[in-house]
Amino acid sequence: MANKAQVLYDFTAEPGNNELTVKEGETITITNQNIGGGWVEAQNAKGEIGLVPEDYIELTKASPAVGNAAVPDLSFFDAFAPTTASSATSNQVDIAGCAVQPDTPDTPASPNEASNGNDPWSVWNSDPPGNSANNWAAKPEGTETGKAAGGNWNSTAHGHPQAYQGPGAADDDEWDDEWDDVKSSGGYTESGEAGEGGAINRGGAHGSSMKIALNKFPGFSKSGPELYLLSKQPAKGKDKIPVYMGEVGPVWLYPETQLDCVVADPKKGSKMYGLKSYIEYQVMPSTTNKPVNHRYKHFDWLYERLLDKFGSAIPIPSLPDKQVTGRFEEEFIKMRMERLQGWMTRMCRHPIISNSEVFQLFLSYKDEKDWKMGKRKAEKDETVGVMIFSTIEPEAPDLDPIEVEQKCEMFSRFTRAMDDGVKDLLTVGQEHWKRCTGPLPKEYQRIGKAFQNLSSVFNSSGYQGEATLTDALTAAGKTYEEIAQMVAEQPKKDLHFLMETNNEYKGLLGCFPDTIGVHKAAIEKVKEGDKLVATGKIMPQDKVTMAKRISTMSYALQAEMNHFHSNRIYDYNRVMQLYLEQQVKFYETIAEKLKQAHSQFVTM
Amino acid sequence: MANKAQVLYDFTAEPGNNELTVKEGETITITNQNIGGGWVEAQNAKGEIGLVPEDYIELTKASPAVGNAAVPDLSFFDAFAPTTASSATSNQVDIAGCAVQPDTPDTPASPNEASNGNDPWSVWNSDPPGNSANNWAAKPEGTETGKAAGGNWNSTAHGHPQAYQGPGAADDDEWDDEWDDVKSSGGYTESGEAGEGGAINRGGAHGSSMKIALNKFPGFSKSGPELYLLSKQPAKGKDKIPVYMGEVGPVWLYPETQLDCVVADPKKGSKMYGLKSYIEYQVMPSTTNKPVNHRYKHFDWLYERLLDKFGSAIPIPSLPDKQVTGRFEEEFIKMRMERLQGWMTRMCRHPIISNSEVFQLFLSYKDEKDWKMGKRKAEKDETVGVMIFSTIEPEAPDLDPIEVEQKCEMFSRFTRAMDDGVKDLLTVGQEHWKRCTGPLPKEYQRIGKAFQNLSSVFNSSGYQGEATLTDALTAAGKTYEEIAQMVAEQPKKDLHFLMETNNEYKGLLGCFPDTIGVHKAAIEKVKEGDKLVATGKIMPQDKVTMAKRISTMSYALQAEMNHFHSNRIYDYNRVMQLYLEQQVKFYETIAEKLKQAHSQFVTM
Repeated sequence: MANKAQVLYDFTAEPGNNELTVKEGETITITNQNIGGGWVEAQNAKGEIGLVPEDYIELTKASPAVGNAAVPDLSFFDAFAPTTASSATSNQVDIAGCAVQPDTPDTPASPNEASNGNDPWSVWNSDPPGNSANNWAAKPEGTETGKAAGGNWNSTAHGHPQAYQGPGAADDDEWDDEWDDVKSSGGYTESGEAGEGGAINRGGAHGSSMKIALNKFPGFSKSGPELYLLSKQPAKGKDKIPVYMGEVGPVWLYPETQLDCVVADPKKGSKMYGLKSYIEYQVMPSTTNKPVNHRYKHFDWLYERLLDKFGSAIPIPSLPDKQVTGRFEEEFIKMRMERLQGWMTRMCRHPIISNSEVFQLFLSYKDEKDWKMGKRKAEKDETVGVMIFSTIEPEAPDLDPIEVEQKCEMFSRFTRAMDDGVKDLLTVGQEHWKRCTGPLPKEYQRIGKAFQNLSSVFNSSGYQGEATLTDALTAAGKTYEEIAQMVAEQPKKDLHFLMETNNEYKGLLGCFPDTIGVHKAAIEKVKEGDKLVATGKIMPQDKVTMAKRISTMSYALQAEMNHFHSNRIYDYNRVMQLYLEQQVKFYETIAEKLKQAHSQFVTM
Repeated sequence: MANKAQVLYDFTAEPGNNELTVKEGETITITNQNIGGGWVEAQNAKGEIGLVPEDYIELTKASPAVGNAAVPDLSFFDAFAPTTASSATSNQVDIAGCAVQPDTPDTPASPNEASNGNDPWSVWNSDPPGNSANNWAAKPEGTETGKAAGGNWNSTAHGHPQAYQGPGAADDDEWDDEWDDVKSSGGYTESGEAGEGGAINRGGAHGSSMKIALNKFPGFSKSGPELYLLSKQPAKGKDKIPVYMGEVGPVWLYPETQLDCVVADPKKGSKMYGLKSYIEYQVMPSTTNKPVNHRYKHFDWLYERLLDKFGSAIPIPSLPDKQVTGRFEEEFIKMRMERLQGWMTRMCRHPIISNSEVFQLFLSYKDEKDWKMGKRKAEKDETVGVMIFSTIEPEAPDLDPIEVEQKCEMFSRFTRAMDDGVKDLLTVGQEHWKRCTGPLPKEYQRIGKAFQNLSSVFNSSGYQGEATLTDALTAAGKTYEEIAQMVAEQPKKDLHFLMETNNEYKGLLGCFPDTIGVHKAAIEKVKEGDKLVATGKIMPQDKVTMAKRISTMSYALQAEMNHFHSNRIYDYNRVMQLYLEQQVKFYETIAEKLKQAHSQFVTM
């Protein structure tokens, strides 16, 4: 079943990594499509075989012939038929299962198709070719019925649609598990044109990766909010997640001491007799103080589990971007570690996530056996997708559905507005970064050189008593050269953190449309209640249950929003403090340097 | 004797000033060529008559038919025939007299020809069409003999070749004496693209103006250094200019108290029943404390007299640029006053110039009669051109001609090198000015707006306890807007003075090639001494006299160079102090503002 594929973009193999260099327009033969991690094995016309990023090619003939046109129009009740909640693990089955999702590209797609969900509210300036502009937000919301609502809900099944989306949860220790580093879309260009770290943004592989993820978890991907709204089973007692009424409204239960952890000490490991290399990070939780080592792919596995389990109620920010090349370079490792740290900190700060079994498993690696057992258990967890709401217990009276809808609309508006604001700041910051690292220091350097040049001309005057001025001019010139360097280096000391924080929030805000989408779909369902009762599709009691359930969902959403707000206020206060503190230091240092330069000039 | 002329550039008449609007390519008839000040009266095809800048037109037929081709090759001794030293005032005679100068365009020339001497060492970036790139410096120096040396010397007759050169010294009170404001080439673009003051740089009228000036003073224009080297008459006692040996070498005699004056209080005056307007500046000398009023044309007259009398020994910096349009606008008047002040200060600081009769006349205007008498006397002064050296008396032993030549070469090298250095700094400064007034403040403004925007989004969250952060963010945003404004306004507070000083020095340095050229021509003459004696052209005694005279010239040049160096050291120390002081304040103020913004953010 060998398929031909057309190469869409040039790709240069990284030496020693079994990659295949291909040119745009070249036709290659896919020899293994099940590599995972956004890669396929392919053979070129010369007979050379190697790995090529999936998004760099376009299959000339789709292999499993399941097209969107064949999607059956499922009825309301089909959507929460019991079979859909069962766990299916075979890829074959998953791809077929995909057919129920009208919005999901279910054949290996071209990059443009594969990454539809990448950015819900705006087109990235820095988007690689693979990220096109089919925005989720552009779809009508809150007006769907039946199938349409299911379609909207299914958008969540694509996973959280921000910059990065993880690859499929590969099995342990398969040969290709080094390929956990496919860089996807960009965030802001961290090192500007300097090309620091040599990281090349090659376009996202997440479209197809996400497909694999959703294939694996049909409980999360194949059903709408009805599954919860009309479910019979109560959650087990030990899993209960309470929502309290706090000063600011509904809040999660926060632990007395906040969990924290440090991601540090990246080390290069290798396997297969050194043929395959990877980076391992040390994760040190504040609870145990026992370090555990994890590779990026482990983080990614954790992300997938959290997304699967909590994603309907809690926006799970994506991991830092994947990367095809340069992933062993120091700068890249440093930045990835910083971002993994940021991600872990955010997860630790979340009372529900940090307290979850799967998160604790990640932090408490004892031995391989224990880890594998924990992994299998987590992967078999059936309280995923909308069913997470069945574990939530608000300690407050039921909310009026109108209030529920108003709150939901308000959150939707706010997160959109903030997303715009954050992106605006990122754009401005990116330009400022470029100026500070490009033309501005060059100009200060030229000023410095001009002063020094004049100084050396003056030195040649042959006039007595020239030295004081020429020394002073030289010193002033050197001062401006120092300022040039300071200007160029400053963004790393302040703007960097402002950008990182906003980039993190951009990612987090990118998750909200899906999380809020679940709520909107549920609200639409509840609105149909009377009609459903009238047509005999549900019992009057079901309608009462749905109203109660939507109230629970709203409490969860409010608790999550309040969690978001409180974190946001803390984060922005903190990053602005840091930014301004560094800016003050910067300007003070310049003033001090200039003061010294000034003191060398004398007039009688 | 009406001549046709072709219009080279569009010129738009300023309303109410008797000007004539003409279009490029149009043919006009010159009705009066003796207007002066760089203007001619012309009639267009419709019969309309008005004034047109001389440099904007090209005569299709020269009026006094004296072409360069007809220049007689004057012999060495013809050059200092007694008649050439006599004072001739009729324009008619002057134009004919012009024919002895091979390099001087002696017919009303096109701008390209007329402004050859505009910039000796480099082409201006901001040159108007009238300033082409025929550099004096490109001509071989120090290698001329006989006629060639005369040619080099004659280059001085063009007047000092920097940005501005004055118009002919018009007679008192002729109707057109408002036309004293023809802007010539640019210096640095003071107000950047902002177009402040609305001054349009229309191209220099100085080429032809200088021609008139030199026509009037054949003593200065028609002879080489031989006039002095072999002159018989000793200077009168009261005019003696001594050169002393100071610590740094030969120096002028400096007065005990340095003259100073303040140029202030520009007032618009008018005459001819308000038809003609002009600006009058108040000049207040520190000696008398009695203010005198002078128009630009009076400054210009003074400049011409100083150039004529001292130009061979002392570089006389040009006045600030002339200007055709916008000359009554506030910004322009302010800048011109500032530059007139700078020029006057430099003249006051010069011991020879400030002590001269003509300069004192300018500062001590009593009444119209006294002023006119003084003017006529000054204009009849015969100790002009190289003859100024006959008044100089070094109190030191004669110098060896080889040392004289070495010194001269050294000064030449230094002034060229400094000219390059100054121009380099001006270029850098101009770019910095543009950045500081253009993209940089815009960027800070955008940062400020982005913070404020985020603040207003946060304000809409509906979350309690938002106010502290949003207030702080708004304050930070406003701070960056303030910084934007500071950045945009800062160049006026510091870079402006650095630029003005360097611009002044650029002008001053532009005078040196001519002043040094006089010396080089004299050195070449003296080198020919043996040959001239051998061929019986001069007496052996004349050779001794020439050696003595060249020594005197060298003492004068050294005294002037030492004056230049001491002023330069003072000026650069002073302007760098001012620049850095303002820069320190600027950065300190920013740091202080940011510190305040910082203090508003709180984290627990």
